[in-house]
Amino acid sequence: MSNRSDTSGFIDRTLSNLRQVWRGRPPGIAVAPDLPDGDVERLKRQIDACLTAKGGEVSARLRAAGLGQSYLGLSDEGRVRFLRVLAEDYDVEPEALEDALARVNEAADADTRHDALRVLRRDLLPPRTKLLTQFNALPQGVKFLVDMRKDLLALGARDDPALRRLDVDLRELLTSWFDIGFLDLERITWESPAALLEKLIDYEAVHRIRSWDDLKNRLDSDRRCYAFFHPRMPDEPLIFIEVALVKGIAGNVQELLDEAAPEEDPDAADAAIFYSISNAQAGLAGVSFGDFLIKRVADDLQRSLPTLKSFATLSPVPGFRRWLENRLEREGEDVFGAAEAESLKAAAGMEEAPAALRALLAREDWAGDAALADSLKPILLRLAAGFLQATDDRGRARDRVAHFHLSNGARLERLNWLGDTSGNGMRQSAGIMVNYLYRLADIEKNHEAYRGNGRIVAAPAVKKLG
Amino acid sequence: MSNRSDTSGFIDRTLSNLRQVWRGRPPGIAVAPDLPDGDVERLKRQIDACLTAKGGEVSARLRAAGLGQSYLGLSDEGRVRFLRVLAEDYDVEPEALEDALARVNEAADADTRHDALRVLRRDLLPPRTKLLTQFNALPQGVKFLVDMRKDLLALGARDDPALRRLDVDLRELLTSWFDIGFLDLERITWESPAALLEKLIDYEAVHRIRSWDDLKNRLDSDRRCYAFFHPRMPDEPLIFIEVALVKGIAGNVQELLDEAAPEEDPDAADAAIFYSISNAQAGLAGVSFGDFLIKRVADDLQRSLPTLKSFATLSPVPGFRRWLENRLEREGEDVFGAAEAESLKAAAGMEEAPAALRALLAREDWAGDAALADSLKPILLRLAAGFLQATDDRGRARDRVAHFHLSNGARLERLNWLGDTSGNGMRQSAGIMVNYLYRLADIEKNHEAYRGNGRIVAAPAVKKLG
Amino acid sequence: MSNRSDTSGFIDRTLSNLRQVWRGRPPGIAVAPDLPDGDVERLKRQIDACLTAKGGEVSARLRAAGLGQSYLGLSDEGRVRFLRVLAEDYDVEPEALEDALARVNEAADADTRHDALRVLRRDLLPPRTKLLTQFNALPQGVKFLVDMRKDLLALGARDDPALRRLDVDLRELLTSWFDIGFLDLERITWESPAALLEKLIDYEAVHRIRSWDDLKNRLDSDRRCYAFFHPRMPDEPLIFIEVALVKGIAGNVQELLDEAAPEEDPDAADAAIFYSISNAQAGLAGVSFGDFLIKRVADDLQRSLPTLKSFATLSPVPGFRRWLENRLEREGEDVFGAAEAESLKAAAGMEEAPAALRALLAREDWAGDAALADSLKPILLRLAAGFLQATDDRGRARDRVAHFHLSNGARLERLNWLGDTSGNGMRQSAGIMVNYLYRLADIEKNHEAYRGNGRIVAAPAVKKLG
Amino acid sequence: MSNRSDTSGFIDRTLSNLRQVWRGRPPGIAVAPDLPDGDVERLKRQIDACLTAKGGEVSARLRAAGLGQSYLGLSDEGRVRFLRVLAEDYDVEPEALEDALARVNEAADADTRHDALRVLRRDLLPPRTKLLTQFNALPQGVKFLVDMRKDLLALGARDDPALRRLDVDLRELLTSWFDIGFLDLERITWESPAALLEKLIDYEAVHRIRSWDDLKNRLDSDRRCYAFFHPRMPDEPLIFIEVALVKGIAGNVQELLDEAAPEEDPDAADAAIFYSISNAQAGLAGVSFGDFLIKRVADDLQRSLPTLKSFATLSPVPGFRRWLENRLEREGEDVFGAAEAESLKAAAGMEEAPAALRALLAREDWAGDAALADSLKPILLRLAAGFLQATDDRGRARDRVAHFHLSNGARLERLNWLGDTSGNGMRQSAGIMVNYLYRLADIEKNHEAYRGNGRIVAAPAVKKLG
Repeated sequence: MSNRSDTSGFIDRTLSNLRQVWRGRPPGIAVAPDLPDGDVERLKRQIDACLTAKGGEVSARLRAAGLGQSYLGLSDEGRVRFLRVLAEDYDVEPEALEDALARVNEAADADTRHDALRVLRRDLLPPRTKLLTQFNALPQGVKFLVDMRKDLLALGARDDPALRRLDVDLRELLTSWFDIGFLDLERITWESPAALLEKLIDYEAVHRIRSWDDLKNRLDSDRRCYAFFHPRMPDEPLIFIEVALVKGIAGNVQELLDEAAPEEDPDAADAAIFYSISNAQAGLAGVSFGDFLIKRVADDLQRSLPTLKSFATLSPVPGFRRWLENRLEREGEDVFGAAEAESLKAAAGMEEAPAALRALLAREDWAGDAALADSLKPILLRLAAGFLQATDDRGRARDRVAHFHLSNGARLERLNWLGDTSGNGMRQSAGIMVNYLYRLADIEKNHEAYRGNGRIVAAPAVKKLG
Repeated sequence: MSNRSDTSGFIDRTLSNLRQVWRGRPPGIAVAPDLPDGDVERLKRQIDACLTAKGGEVSARLRAAGLGQSYLGLSDEGRVRFLRVLAEDYDVEPEALEDALARVNEAADADTRHDALRVLRRDLLPPRTKLLTQFNALPQGVKFLVDMRKDLLALGARDDPALRRLDVDLRELLTSWFDIGFLDLERITWESPAALLEKLIDYEAVHRIRSWDDLKNRLDSDRRCYAFFHPRMPDEPLIFIEVALVKGIAGNVQELLDEAAPEEDPDAADAAIFYSISNAQAGLAGVSFGDFLIKRVADDLQRSLPTLKSFATLSPVPGFRRWLENRLEREGEDVFGAAEAESLKAAAGMEEAPAALRALLAREDWAGDAALADSLKPILLRLAAGFLQATDDRGRARDRVAHFHLSNGARLERLNWLGDTSGNGMRQSAGIMVNYLYRLADIEKNHEAYRGNGRIVAAPAVKKLG
Repeated sequence: MSNRSDTSGFIDRTLSNLRQVWRGRPPGIAVAPDLPDGDVERLKRQIDACLTAKGGEVSARLRAAGLGQSYLGLSDEGRVRFLRVLAEDYDVEPEALEDALARVNEAADADTRHDALRVLRRDLLPPRTKLLTQFNALPQGVKFLVDMRKDLLALGARDDPALRRLDVDLRELLTSWFDIGFLDLERITWESPAALLEKLIDYEAVHRIRSWDDLKNRLDSDRRCYAFFHPRMPDEPLIFIEVALVKGIAGNVQELLDEAAPEEDPDAADAAIFYSISNAQAGLAGVSFGDFLIKRVADDLQRSLPTLKSFATLSPVPGFRRWLENRLEREGEDVFGAAEAESLKAAAGMEEAPAALRALLAREDWAGDAALADSLKPILLRLAAGFLQATDDRGRARDRVAHFHLSNGARLERLNWLGDTSGNGMRQSAGIMVNYLYRLADIEKNHEAYRGNGRIVAAPAVKKLG
Repeated sequence: MSNRSDTSGFIDRTLSNLRQVWRGRPPGIAVAPDLPDGDVERLKRQIDACLTAKGGEVSARLRAAGLGQSYLGLSDEGRVRFLRVLAEDYDVEPEALEDALARVNEAADADTRHDALRVLRRDLLPPRTKLLTQFNALPQGVKFLVDMRKDLLALGARDDPALRRLDVDLRELLTSWFDIGFLDLERITWESPAALLEKLIDYEAVHRIRSWDDLKNRLDSDRRCYAFFHPRMPDEPLIFIEVALVKGIAGNVQELLDEAAPEEDPDAADAAIFYSISNAQAGLAGVSFGDFLIKRVADDLQRSLPTLKSFATLSPVPGFRRWLENRLEREGEDVFGAAEAESLKAAAGMEEAPAALRALLAREDWAGDAALADSLKPILLRLAAGFLQATDDRGRARDRVAHFHLSNGARLERLNWLGDTSGNGMRQSAGIMVNYLYRLADIEKNHEAYRGNGRIVAAPAVKKLG
C-alpha cells in the first residue's frame, strides 16, 4: 500500500526529508532546546544563509526546512528567544532603506524609477518576512507558520513591543495566504475521518462536545456541520459551524443537544439554526472567516433543502452579566424601575435591589425555581435587550457576538428566556440566548446600517423589550 | 450526473457567476470591443471600485470578475487600450508615496515607525498590482492573468516602455504564484484525457508531433512524458518533457521518433534520454521551471527503474548556424585551418572556403550525400564544439540551450553528427545534436563552476574536438 | 509513483503473477502453439487439477491462471484444439448423472433428498463450466472469457455441434455475469482517456469515425456519448451510444456528422437523436444491453436537460435493398403500380420496371441527380414503409434494426428521404433513414403490442406511406 | 453538493426508488408486520410475479425490491412466516423435475440432450434460489440477503428442518458471491470514517474495545488493522484483524492493549502479532475468509516493513477450562501426577486434587497471588499443552482456535502463562495464551501434515510441555 522503499532519488528524497522534518526527526541545525547564546549565533548564520538564496532553489528549501526543524525542537524558553531574534535582528534595515530611497530620488527616467521603486519595496519588506514567506512553498510549511503564531501569542506577543511587531507582520502574511477565495467548504458527517472528528471535539468552543455519542448526535440526519479548509493545510479545519434543521426558530440549546430527542425529518424542516461556530486555529486569531462561512452554508442549505424559510443563529450574550455588574456598580438603584426593584427585594428578602439581584443570580439553582425565574424574567430580558442594542463611542455593539452578527448583516431577532441553562450560559448570559436572523435580501442593507451609521437593526419585539 | 438546477443560493450563485464569467457570458461592464474613450472612463470607474474594497469581500470579487469579463470581450485594439490604462494610470502615485515617506520620517517610536513602514510598503505597490492580485482568488483567475500576460507580450510589451513596466510587475506577480514549491508533477500517458494530450500536440515546440499516432508512439512503454501543473490551473500543463528509455546514450532523434521502431523493454534500459522539453504557457515567459522538472523526473525515473545509469538530454544547437554565419562574415578564411579550407573548396568547386561552406550547407540534400557529409563532419564538429564552449563577456555560453543545461549543472557530454536531419535541425544546428549529461553527484559542482566562474564543464572528447 | 519493488510477499506476488499472466509472460504449462496430441494430454491433466481444488484456494487460482496463460500462447489451430477438448471431454458425465439420480430416488427423507438434489444439480453442471467459472475471480479473468468466446465464434462455433454446445454454455455464463444490474453507465467526453477514445474509433460500427477530429466533433457540447462498463472489466466499453442534441427531430446523418457545422447550444435543444449504437465486445454476441442503455441515457438526458421533448433514433434500414431485390425477383412487375412502372421505365429508358429500378439504383450518383431522385422518392419510400411494417411468420419485423427498436417499445415515426448518402447507406438502405421514437409513457404499451400481438406501432404518416 | 432534484426520469427514478427501498420507505406490497394468513397469499402472488419475469428487466427488479421492502417491514414473527413460505412453498417442484428428467431420457441427439440437461439443471434450482439470486443485482441487495440469513439463523434455522434447508441454499448462494477473488483488502486507520470505526467497536469479538481511546490506541503507528470488503457491500467490513508490531513475539495481551504504554517505532519491530480477528457479519457464518486474510496481511506487512522476521498470533485457548472440567469429572485423580496432586492439595488445603484445582481456579484473584500462581503454572501449562495437541476421532484439534490456525498451516509455537488475565481469559483459558507461528515457507507443508494426516505441528518446547 504505502511505498517505503527509496533507492537513489535525490530531489524527492529531499522533499520527503522536508516532509519528515515536520514530523520530528531530520536535519536542521543542532541547537539546545533553550537556545543558549552560542546557539543563537549559529541560528543567525542559518537564517542569513536562507536569506541569500545561494545554491539553487532546492537547497534553499532544505535550509528553511532545517530552520523550521530547529524551531520545533525548542522549549518554550528557546522559542521565545528564537522569536525575539526574528523580531529584533531581522526587521527592516535602515541603511538599505536609505540607499533604496536615494536611488529612487536619483532615478533619471521612468524605467529606472520603476526599478528603484521595486527595489525600495523589496527593501521595505522585513528580512524576517522574506524568511517566513519561504515556508509557504514547504510541505506543512503553512501549518508550521500558523502554529508558530500560536506560540507567539501564547508566549506573550501582546505585551512585548518587538514580538507584537513580529506578530503584525506574521498576521499580515497569513491574512494574504488565507484569502477566502482559497478556502474549500466541506460538509462534515459521521462518515468523516475519526482523526478529523476528534479535532471538532477538541476545538468546539461554544457548547463543549462531551463524548463521541454527543458528537454523533450533532451529525444526525437533522443536523449539519460544515468547515472551511485551506488546500495547503488539508487535514486541519480552520473554522466550523453546527446547524440544526428544525421547525420554527429554536430558542433552547439544551433541547437541540439532547441526545435522547428523536431525529427530525430534514425535508420537513423550515428553519436552519446555527447554534455553534468555532475557530479551530489559535494561530489565525484576527484572520476572519466566520461571515463568509455562514453565508456559504446558508446558500448550500437553501439549495439542498428548498423548504427552508429561515436562517438564524442561536447565540449566547457572553458580555451580559459582566456589563450588568458594571452597571449595578455605577448606577445602583437607578438601574431598575420601581416595580422591578420591589419585585427583586421581595424575592431576595433584602433591602436593596442591586444587592437583591446579585444575591438571586448567585443562587446555583435559580433557573429551576419557577416562581423566582418568572419574577426575574421581565427584568433580565429588558436589561439584556438594552445591552444588546447599546453601542460604544465607535458605534459598535457592546456584546462581541452581537457585533459579529450585526456586522455580517444579520438582524437581532429574538431573546430566549432560559435558552441556555448550562453553567457557562448562566454565568455569562444569565441563561438568555439570542437569535440573529440572516435574511439574505436584507444583509447588505443591514450591514450598511450598522457599519455605516452605527444603527442596530432589531425586530420590533426586541425594540419594545429594551 | 451533473447538477444544473439552481434554486435560490446567492453566494454560490455569485461564485458560479464568477465561474461563468470566464466562459464568456455574464456581468462585467458593457464596453465596446475596441474600448473607445468614453468606455475607458467607465472602465476606470470600475477599476477604482475594485481598488476601494467597498461592500464586502464577495462584492469585491464580483467586481473584479466583471472587469475580467469586460477584458475578455475586447478586440486586440481594445486590449492594448485596456493594458495601457493599467500601465499608465495605475502606477505608483507620487503623492501617496511622499506622504507615506513623511510619516516614516516623523515616526516617534518603534511601533509608529513599523506601521509607517508598512503603509509605505503598501503605497509602493502599484494600484494595478493590487488589482491584479485580486484575480488570484477568483476561479480561473490565475489562468486569466497568464493569458493576459500572453496578450501583453504579443501586443508589443517589449517595445513600449509603459507596457514593459506593466509586464515587469505582472511577471513578478506570476513568479511568486508559480513558485516550484506549488507545482505538481504528473506523468502523462495514453490513459490521460484526450483534451490534455491535444494540448501536448499543440504546445510541443522542439520536435513537432505530427499525428495522434506519433503522440501514441511517444507514450509507449519505453517512453515517458511528465508535466508540471499548478493547483489553480489544473487543466493546463505548464511545461512538459519527453523521455526515451534506451540502451546507451542516444544520438539520433529521428530514430527515437520512428513509429515503426520496435518497443524496447523499459526494465532493460540503462539510459533515460530527455529529447524534448517544451513550455506550454506563453504568458509564463521568463518564469522558469525546466531545471526543477528535469531533476524531479530524473529522480522519479531512478526510483521506478533502478537499472537506469545515465540521464542525458538529446538537444539541438539552435544558435550554431547563425553564429557560424556571423563568424564567416567577420573572420572569413581565418575560420578554417588550411586542410579544412582545401577540403571545402574542393567539395564545392569554389575558390573561397567561406563561400564554399555556405554553398554546401545551402544544398537541400547535403546530409544524404555520404562523401560530402564525411568531408564536412570534422569541420563542423570542430566549429560546433568551439561554439558550445565559447562564453560571452558575462561568462555565459553563447548557445541558449547550452546555457540552460550548464546552468542546471549538466555536463556537455557528446556531439552527435547528423543527429537531427529534419528541416529545422539542418537549418539551425547543421544537423548536430548534443547530449548534456545530468550526473546527480556533480550537479552542484558543475553549476558552481559555470555560474560562479564561467567555466563550461565538458567531457574530454568534446574538449579535444573544439 | 508506481511501486515496482517486491521484497518477499508471497500471496500478493501470486496475485500479481496472476495479473501478469494476462499480459503475456509467466507460468502456465508449456505447450506448443498448435497444441499437438502430446500436449493435449498435459493440458487435460492441468484441467483435471483445476477441477479437483487440491492445495487451497490460492493454488487453485494459480492453476487456472496458468491454464489461461497456456491458452493465450496458442495459435488459431491450437485454440480450436483447446476449445474442442473443452467441448468434447468436459461435458456432463453420464455415469455421475446416473449415480446422482439414483441417490435422489433413494432419498428416504426430506433432508437427504434436498442434499441429493443439490448433488444432482452440481453434477449436471458440465465440468468445463465449473472450470470457466473459476476465471470469474481472476484479475482480467472476465475479459479472458469474453475474448475466448470471441475466438470460439470466429473459429466456427456456429457450424460445429460440439463447439456450439460449448458456446451455449459460455453464453449462459456470460449472460449471468453481465446482468444489467451490474453495469455502470458512464458519459464519455473529450476529457476521457485517449486509450478509451481510441476504442470508440475501433468499435464504431454504424457510422465509421474517420479521424480524431471526427471523434472530437462527436463529443462537442451539443453531442453526448455514453457507454456501459462492467466493474470487472473497467477499461473496456461494452456498448456505446452517440447522441445529438438538436432542434426538431433530425433526418439526415451527414448533417449531424458535419465537422464544419456550428455547435448548437445544448440548453436550447428540444430533441435528443440517437444516431449510432455499437456493441464493442464480439465475445458478448447475444448478450443484450442496448434496450437498457437507450432508456438509461434518455433518463439521464431528460434530467440534465429538462427542455428536451423528444427522444428518437436516426437509424438505417439495413435489410431494405436485399429485401427489395428478393421481391423484384419473385414478383417482377407486380411490385409496382402502373404510374410507378411508367416513371421507372421512362427514367431508365428501359422496357421493364424491375430492371429499370435495378439499373437506376446501380448508378453511382443517382442521389445527386435531383430529377431522378425526385422520381424515385415516392416509389422507394412506399416500398420501404411497407418493408418496415411487414412481419414474418413469427410476428417479427423483417428489418433487424426495426425489430430491435420495436421490441424496446419505440414507435416507427418517420422515414427520411436521402438521410444517409454514404456508400453504405445507399447500398443497404437506398439512402433512407428512419426515426424510431421513444416516448416514455408509451414504451410498455408499444412493447406489449409488438411482442404480444405482432402489431407494429407506426405514426399515421408512415402508415399512409406503406 | 448532493443532487436532490428529480425531474422526469423513469429508469433512474426506478433505480433510485430501489435504492430508497432499502432505506426504509417505499413501495413493496403492503402487509401487516406479523404477516397474517391473508397477507401470506398476497405475498405469494408477489413472489410468483417475480419468478415469471414478465414486463422486462427493470420491472422485475422493482418487484424484487418491493418484496424486500415488504420483508423489512415485518416483525420477527412475520419474518419467520415469510422465511417458512420460502422454505416450504418454493422448493424444487417434483413434477417439473419429472418432466425434465423424461425429456433428458427421450433426447434423440446430442444437441437435444444438451438442451434437456440445461432445462433439468434449471428445474433443479429451487424457485426460492432463483428469487434470491435476483437480489444480487439490486442496490443493497447483497447486504439484504446477508442480513436475511442473519435473521434466519437467529430465528432458529438450525432447529427446523425446512428452515435449515433454506439456510443451506442461502449459504451456498452467499459462498459463491463472496469468493475470495472478489474481496478488497483495506487498511483501517484513525483516518478512516467514524461510521466504519464504530462498527469495529461493535463487532470486535475477541478483546472488547472499551472506548474510542482504546480503539485509537489500537490504530497507533505501531499497530495495524486490516479488513476485507466486498465491492457490492462497500460500507460493511466482512472480517478484520488487529496487529501489533513489536520486538520479539508478544505473550501478554494486556500489555498490548495498555493505552498508557509508549508507542514503539514500527521500523524497529521484528514481529507482527495478530492478536484479534473478528468476523463482522453474522449472516456470513460458515463462509470463510480468515485464512486468506492472515496471509494477505502478512504479505502486505512483509513488503512494507522488511525488518519483520516473525508473524504470529496471540490467541486464547477458549476450550481449555471446559475440557479440563470434563476430564476432571471423567478421570478424577488420574489427571495429575503425584507431585502435582500434592501441590494442589496443599495449596487449597483440601483432600482431593480435582476439588482442589476447581477451588483454586474458582478464586477471583488467584492470578494475583504470586505463590499460588507459581504452583499452578507447571500443572496448567502441561494440561493446556496436552489439550492443544489432542485430536478427536476425525483428526481435528479439540480447540477450535487451534483447529483454525493449524488448518491454515501455522505451527503451535508457544504457551504464555498469564497471557490474558481478563475475566474472559481466566474463565475460558485459565489465563493462558498461545502463539501460532505463520512461517511462510512451511505453510503448505504444515497444512498438509494436519489436514492430510491429523498431525499437529508444534515447537519442541510445546511438545516437551505436554
